[in-house]
Amino acid sequence: MALQGTNTQVLFVKRPIGQFNPTETFKIVKTPVPTVESLKEGEFIVRNYWLSLDPAMRGWMSDSRRSYIRPVEINEVMRGQTVGVVVASKSSKFRAGDKVQIMGGWQEFTVSNGKGAWKLDVPPGAHLHDFLGIFGGTGMTAYFGLLDIGKPKAGETVVVSGAAGATGSLVGQIAKIKGTRVIGIAGSKEKCDWLEKELGFDVALNYRDADFSKKLAAATPKYIDVYFDNVGGDILDLCLKRIAQKGRIVVCGAISQYNEKNPQGPKNYTTLITQRARMEGFIVFDYGPRYPEAVRDIAKWLQEGKIKRREFVTEGLENAPEGLLRLFKGENTGKTLVKLVNEKSKL
Amino acid sequence: MALQGTNTQVLFVKRPIGQFNPTETFKIVKTPVPTVESLKEGEFIVRNYWLSLDPAMRGWMSDSRRSYIRPVEINEVMRGQTVGVVVASKSSKFRAGDKVQIMGGWQEFTVSNGKGAWKLDVPPGAHLHDFLGIFGGTGMTAYFGLLDIGKPKAGETVVVSGAAGATGSLVGQIAKIKGTRVIGIAGSKEKCDWLEKELGFDVALNYRDADFSKKLAAATPKYIDVYFDNVGGDILDLCLKRIAQKGRIVVCGAISQYNEKNPQGPKNYTTLITQRARMEGFIVFDYGPRYPEAVRDIAKWLQEGKIKRREFVTEGLENAPEGLLRLFKGENTGKTLVKLVNEKSKL
Repeated sequence: MALQGTNTQVLFVKRPIGQFNPTETFKIVKTPVPTVESLKEGEFIVRNYWLSLDPAMRGWMSDSRRSYIRPVEINEVMRGQTVGVVVASKSSKFRAGDKVQIMGGWQEFTVSNGKGAWKLDVPPGAHLHDFLGIFGGTGMTAYFGLLDIGKPKAGETVVVSGAAGATGSLVGQIAKIKGTRVIGIAGSKEKCDWLEKELGFDVALNYRDADFSKKLAAATPKYIDVYFDNVGGDILDLCLKRIAQKGRIVVCGAISQYNEKNPQGPKNYTTLITQRARMEGFIVFDYGPRYPEAVRDIAKWLQEGKIKRREFVTEGLENAPEGLLRLFKGENTGKTLVKLVNEKSKL
Repeated sequence: MALQGTNTQVLFVKRPIGQFNPTETFKIVKTPVPTVESLKEGEFIVRNYWLSLDPAMRGWMSDSRRSYIRPVEINEVMRGQTVGVVVASKSSKFRAGDKVQIMGGWQEFTVSNGKGAWKLDVPPGAHLHDFLGIFGGTGMTAYFGLLDIGKPKAGETVVVSGAAGATGSLVGQIAKIKGTRVIGIAGSKEKCDWLEKELGFDVALNYRDADFSKKLAAATPKYIDVYFDNVGGDILDLCLKRIAQKGRIVVCGAISQYNEKNPQGPKNYTTLITQRARMEGFIVFDYGPRYPEAVRDIAKWLQEGKIKRREFVTEGLENAPEGLLRLFKGENTGKTLVKLVNEKSKL
């Protein structure tokens, strides 16, 4: 197959201090689509159908701290996970037509050498883009963060913030499957309705309500055994105040702080002493060898109707920077994705 | 034996906001020594020889937070651990002449019903007041906090703050016994000299030095596997920056923050995510059933010359409030004690 046309790419061009700016931080460029002739042995070209947008991307833009991954370099294609289809290959493992998940970056076409690539077998009732959501980094984060770090026991109380987000909504549903009482914290009435009425959360609370802290106390009469934190800031402090004896705080993210020049530390952290509690972080990549176990469980729950999910879709790669900003503004419900290929032109 | 004379007591009379004030927060009173006739069956009178002063006392003065212990009430004798001798008894378990450790409070004589009382058998080479230090709450805190929460492995790097204090100096010595590299953080050159030259710490750093953070980085080339935190504040933040992958932060205390109206949270706590690390608190009382195991180990190390300790003594109960303030100012090296009975009048 002859590839032609342009490869739209989003370059990371300016390291932000504090809040990133869609038009200053990124630059859209058009380059030729890689040619089959240019491929080395073992390489293949992926046409990316969907790009995942994630809060962690803000961290990848910073070079000021020790991290689990190198920062994105200036003028490099912005890092991101994609799912797509192999359109040309000099690899014996990945053949044209194969559906794959790769760290494809913010671009329409990616040359991969197979490292970190994952051939996809889309289960019944699932979509290709679920491999960026419930079967992707998002799903793995929810599954291992909750079960391996939070270790909820039936009858315990689990609180999750960013609850209407991709990770949070799955955390709450898995916690329900495990027999816990689940309280979700989100930023609008619509989100809370979705959590309570469709996803089966016991209680969903809007943190923008004036009496939020009172409502949180009322919803957690036996305190909080597991707090899965996606947001940091004041909500983390309130949950620290309500942590139960031997409680576990899963430090997954701190989306409220990523764009702050002077991030806010949890001033109530000494509750960890009085309540013999702990805060623990994790990086989902460490669980790579155990992903199949999680995918198997989540696929089963999906088929049983115990897991629901939504997508918040930005159309077109050119709009990806704006889409990321909307994620940070909390406009999304469910998994934030960029759709790179419209259905009509789908290969 | 007829008891007579006065029982000097220190009452807690005003709940401080922020910094406590020795003369406003406390009041010295003289009451009659309890009489033998007033004892109920099972009760006994202890003459307190030594009173322990501890950073945790600041927490006991506050009623604004959930804690592991009720706050001290206004006009109540201030809470504190003491060691002393039973001078009169209607108990079958505790007899006149027995040496005991009790929560005797800031007073010369205490009536006890035996609850929480511990009959002491002072090992060779030890002193009665060691049951407030290395064999008391201090020692138990160091032992279980380090070994049970920190779980250091030989070859790892352990950092302890408040290192010249009663708990910190023992933490460092136990960490050395366990084969780790030990860095102590303290507030003066004299303290650092003691830690390096007498206690065998690998490095001791003065946090008041202008280039402290650079020195800390240089002293922890393989980062920090276990950070035993007694102080909180900026030092906690610096150690979070240097935490190793899978590092453990033992949240023991936060003496720098206890008197702050607006305590400072650790703004670098998201390093817990990038380094898959944890922060965990504990309350030493939970380890009560395992104290004998710790006392046995520490007594053995003491006899082998592997454990050294110092006392920072305030003479006379009237001076206890000032002594507590000196502890918070970091004037002490080693265990802060109040001596209630001078040798000449010793029973």
